[in-house]
Amino acid sequence: MSDRREFRDLAEPEEAHEAIESLDLSPEPETVPLREARGRVLAERIDAELDVPGFDRGSMDGYAVRARDTFGADEADPATLELVGAVHAGAEPDVTVESGTCAEISTGAVMPDGADAVVMVERTTEIEGGDTIEIRTSVAPGDHVMFAGADIAAGGRALGPGTEITPREIGLLSALGVDEVPVRGTPTVGIVSTGDELVRPGDDLHSERGQIYDVNSYTIAAGVEEAGGEAVLYPHAGDDYDEMERLLVEASEECDLVLSSGSTSASAVDVIYRVIEERGDLLLHGVSVKPGKPMLVGRVGDSAYVGLPGYPVSALTIFRTFVAPAVREAAGKPEPRTATVSGRMAVEERYSEGRMRLMPAGLVESGPARPTGDGEPGGAGGETLVYPVDKGSGATTSLVEADGVVVVDPDTEYLAAGESVEVQLFSPDVRAPTLFAVGEDDPALSRLLDRVDRPRHLALGSWEGLRRLRDGVPDAAVVAGEPGRDPVASPDPTGDDDPVPTEPVGEWTREWGLIVPAGNPDEVTGLTDLVDRDLRFVNRDSNAGLRTTLSNALADLADERGTTRREVTEAIDGFDRAVRAHESPARRVLAGDADVGLGLRATAERLNTGFVSLGTEPVRVHANPARADKPGVRGLREAIADGDDVFDALAGYER
Amino acid sequence: MSDRREFRDLAEPEEAHEAIESLDLSPEPETVPLREARGRVLAERIDAELDVPGFDRGSMDGYAVRARDTFGADEADPATLELVGAVHAGAEPDVTVESGTCAEISTGAVMPDGADAVVMVERTTEIEGGDTIEIRTSVAPGDHVMFAGADIAAGGRALGPGTEITPREIGLLSALGVDEVPVRGTPTVGIVSTGDELVRPGDDLHSERGQIYDVNSYTIAAGVEEAGGEAVLYPHAGDDYDEMERLLVEASEECDLVLSSGSTSASAVDVIYRVIEERGDLLLHGVSVKPGKPMLVGRVGDSAYVGLPGYPVSALTIFRTFVAPAVREAAGKPEPRTATVSGRMAVEERYSEGRMRLMPAGLVESGPARPTGDGEPGGAGGETLVYPVDKGSGATTSLVEADGVVVVDPDTEYLAAGESVEVQLFSPDVRAPTLFAVGEDDPALSRLLDRVDRPRHLALGSWEGLRRLRDGVPDAAVVAGEPGRDPVASPDPTGDDDPVPTEPVGEWTREWGLIVPAGNPDEVTGLTDLVDRDLRFVNRDSNAGLRTTLSNALADLADERGTTRREVTEAIDGFDRAVRAHESPARRVLAGDADVGLGLRATAERLNTGFVSLGTEPVRVHANPARADKPGVRGLREAIADGDDVFDALAGYER
Repeated sequence: MSDRREFRDLAEPEEAHEAIESLDLSPEPETVPLREARGRVLAERIDAELDVPGFDRGSMDGYAVRARDTFGADEADPATLELVGAVHAGAEPDVTVESGTCAEISTGAVMPDGADAVVMVERTTEIEGGDTIEIRTSVAPGDHVMFAGADIAAGGRALGPGTEITPREIGLLSALGVDEVPVRGTPTVGIVSTGDELVRPGDDLHSERGQIYDVNSYTIAAGVEEAGGEAVLYPHAGDDYDEMERLLVEASEECDLVLSSGSTSASAVDVIYRVIEERGDLLLHGVSVKPGKPMLVGRVGDSAYVGLPGYPVSALTIFRTFVAPAVREAAGKPEPRTATVSGRMAVEERYSEGRMRLMPAGLVESGPARPTGDGEPGGAGGETLVYPVDKGSGATTSLVEADGVVVVDPDTEYLAAGESVEVQLFSPDVRAPTLFAVGEDDPALSRLLDRVDRPRHLALGSWEGLRRLRDGVPDAAVVAGEPGRDPVASPDPTGDDDPVPTEPVGEWTREWGLIVPAGNPDEVTGLTDLVDRDLRFVNRDSNAGLRTTLSNALADLADERGTTRREVTEAIDGFDRAVRAHESPARRVLAGDADVGLGLRATAERLNTGFVSLGTEPVRVHANPARADKPGVRGLREAIADGDDVFDALAGYER
Repeated sequence: MSDRREFRDLAEPEEAHEAIESLDLSPEPETVPLREARGRVLAERIDAELDVPGFDRGSMDGYAVRARDTFGADEADPATLELVGAVHAGAEPDVTVESGTCAEISTGAVMPDGADAVVMVERTTEIEGGDTIEIRTSVAPGDHVMFAGADIAAGGRALGPGTEITPREIGLLSALGVDEVPVRGTPTVGIVSTGDELVRPGDDLHSERGQIYDVNSYTIAAGVEEAGGEAVLYPHAGDDYDEMERLLVEASEECDLVLSSGSTSASAVDVIYRVIEERGDLLLHGVSVKPGKPMLVGRVGDSAYVGLPGYPVSALTIFRTFVAPAVREAAGKPEPRTATVSGRMAVEERYSEGRMRLMPAGLVESGPARPTGDGEPGGAGGETLVYPVDKGSGATTSLVEADGVVVVDPDTEYLAAGESVEVQLFSPDVRAPTLFAVGEDDPALSRLLDRVDRPRHLALGSWEGLRRLRDGVPDAAVVAGEPGRDPVASPDPTGDDDPVPTEPVGEWTREWGLIVPAGNPDEVTGLTDLVDRDLRFVNRDSNAGLRTTLSNALADLADERGTTRREVTEAIDGFDRAVRAHESPARRVLAGDADVGLGLRATAERLNTGFVSLGTEPVRVHANPARADKPGVRGLREAIADGDDVFDALAGYER
């Protein structure tokens, strides 16, 4: 461990931007078929090389005439002209219109020689068996004729360099007959993932060896493509120097930019560091930003190189902040307008970093609200509120629990609630959820959320849901059990005597009890077995409403026995062995790590375990009253009201 | 022409929406590799099937310990533990940490049996040659350990149905090891282009036969792809019934939706109409909307069918308004937030249609402005102004001169200047130009615009530029020649005695004269030849500043001769033969259609014609003073100031 790299001379974020800008990622321009040009960017101006239309063109169905022959004609006193022929679209005229004659003409057909105007068919009558046409209006020269070049004139500027090609530009280029388009090249970005512990999705995972799936390769590849680049994934490299060198050099020969990404381990980072120093040029190592400190910028061979941090949220954040702009620039594409959203901080956030912070943040829309008149954040209608999401940068779920990052200056000590901030979204396609709920993890809720458009539910437990609802951030809290009857965890888990103001959205009940192996080999019958026998138990974490319900039942048991609640819980082997998700205790039982777990009948049915019922508990959804009419909240209310099929399908559920 | 179809019973636009909604475009869901899932939409919910991480994981480089062994340790009184081994990321631990011992551990490695916490390396010292480790801090159980399932717990809801897959969702799915993703199918849209006159871009065009390039096929295909569909182009069909029937039936068998598009001719429309009636089901024909009246909605075989109007702007407008929403719906994609922009009408616009109008509209940003305090449109800072673009729906250039359409209700008689409107952009990627100029067509300007980001210049002539600048719509007018000295066209072409308020942006001069065939076979020496000899002349249109300059010179000639200006111009064969673009007269001369044309020395050099110089004229760019500091105006000012290379490269130009 003695040769561990330290990042002592951290570069300022601005230097990192400049270093990346100094690397040339721009590929050569190329030519693509028009049919494939959408989304590309013109590399050079395109002038019209021909007139559109290329001929004087009738713009109505009717008769081509000499305008002079119609002068004075009207409904009462029509002119009569001899019909000498017809001209159809796509055909060369084989008639000449002399004075006193006319020719039938279709919209889009070539004006025949001699004719200088078109009379629309609605103002004419065929007479004498069709050989003669009565013209019931007078027309001026040029009427209903589109002259050659009137739409686009040869020699004119059609499109300038840098134009992004959307369907309408494809239309203009089609009209000009352009079928090959000179466009900016697509920057090619090689992605080398590192670390002995990484396994690509789809391959077998050996957790006992500490393997995890490689998150960064596909995530960053998708980010590269979203920024207008082409991503090339290289085979996964371990911590071996020669292998890493071979991969980085190969990628540098094939790509405009090479990114390494994946490992959080110091040894893998060390290996990359050495390869870049020996086979390229390290412009800077370490940036004064959190997260992202271990970022590297340099060159390998003729290619630019950026080393991303290993944690997924850090990697995507650094990619989005420092690398994506350079890829866009090289592709000639502006940042989409939707890539940044303005909002107000929902809560206060303090900093003591002394370096730039890229704070993962979630979005929640505050409106439409009932008028509250108090102007508080959360009370105003239709505003975007921004809240920090900080689960530690190692958490993959931050990727979907946050919507983007807020750049916080090093000298910012805190962001006040209500302060305006800009959120750089993880993707221009990210949208704020329509419903933001926090609370109990519940299988029925999970299915009901499938019926709500873009919901977000953080399954952090009932108490955390109530705490956050009190802070005014989420739209709703999902609470299981009976709040205020938790003698073990905390008598008032929200830490406040005022009740949290809420409006009911819906509720149901679920059957809870003890999960045991299939067939109940230990012949568990109830809580007394847990207290009195030597059974290994797995509990839920203290935010879970289900744990409170268990604690309440144990308190009742203690009362019956005339003993203390503490004595009862201390007699249970594993009462403090707490796991986070509703299926987790059952999975521990299934894996043989425990004899009994706290859980739901529905879970026991799903995982085919045994189950000892201890009762039912309510699950209630409470909304922030100011947001009770948000579409997402209304959507959940309707989903619960109409959710009989969901409750019927889950064992032990009733509405 | 007797069997011409009339659209007498027009459907209301709402009926057209409902008819299209009643057709089922939704394809079957499919499974795609995770690597290709970006931009797709989840067809079903995805639950976590495994814990992430799958093992208790060290989250720091350091030493795995029993926390109890460190209790009380600090800098002054470190604990010492025997080093019994090491665990690296991606490897199975082969040590057990007993009391009094520790194991080296890398970030991400599996916690060895017996250990319950990690001490970070910075708080340790190797002593006794590395066999013993001094621990200079105390840790609690769980410190620097990420427990199995702490990030994502098996059984939890990962992503819901309908989720659009962006890089972050790819990250979460990667972490779960999901490498194949169930997604909504991509609706397949067949495009059949019709009309005998259409030629696909890249093929030879025979203008004498009235051929034009097919604009709609590629434009609509690009629109389909932008809306999340897959476009299939079928070979071009003429007006032949059997051919059309074969193509439509083939397309209906292969696609979820068939669009016909292309021809404006009544006979082609008739053929389609008959095929749909005989081989399918026509739900409605004709919609009360302008443009778009001849729209058809129905079924062919098992496929939905929509017939789009023939003119490109009409086709794209109807596609965008009625068809794209159905394609998005089938693909499961919401309309992008950027697809609609709010703005205020820059001018008044009146209607007398009695049916819904889809008004092509351009966007111009009014700011940043100098403070004017008058609150007039154009005076306020940073507002989006909307102006109607109506060149007739047959003009392809409307596609790029308009940015989208404003839906105007049938009962709206006018939109007032300043009224708020919504513009449905032709594409979510369309952005308002940074510079909107109207005026003279000039080759130097055209090159200078290449150096401005997203400029729009409508080459409608100097006088039109001044008129529109007076109306407050464009940012700048480009004016050639000397305004106010046009005795032929109009003494005050803006029709107002007040001078148009302007702020100079830049100016240059250009040499003008007579374009003659190479070698000047008629030995033209100047204007007298034009007046006195029998030469066929081609002039520019009356909005062109260059024409005013010619008229002024002819007025001087008339004065010299003591005759009237009218007598002089009437003596020129073709003085009123006016063409629109700056190269058009030269191209007529080249084509042998004229002996002499009005033009620039630069054009003569470019097209290798002869040239008789008649002098120089100024070209001046005037800005709306309220917008002189807009980035686009500043950009053009800088481009002119730095444009010596442009002026040097063009014959007869000087700044």
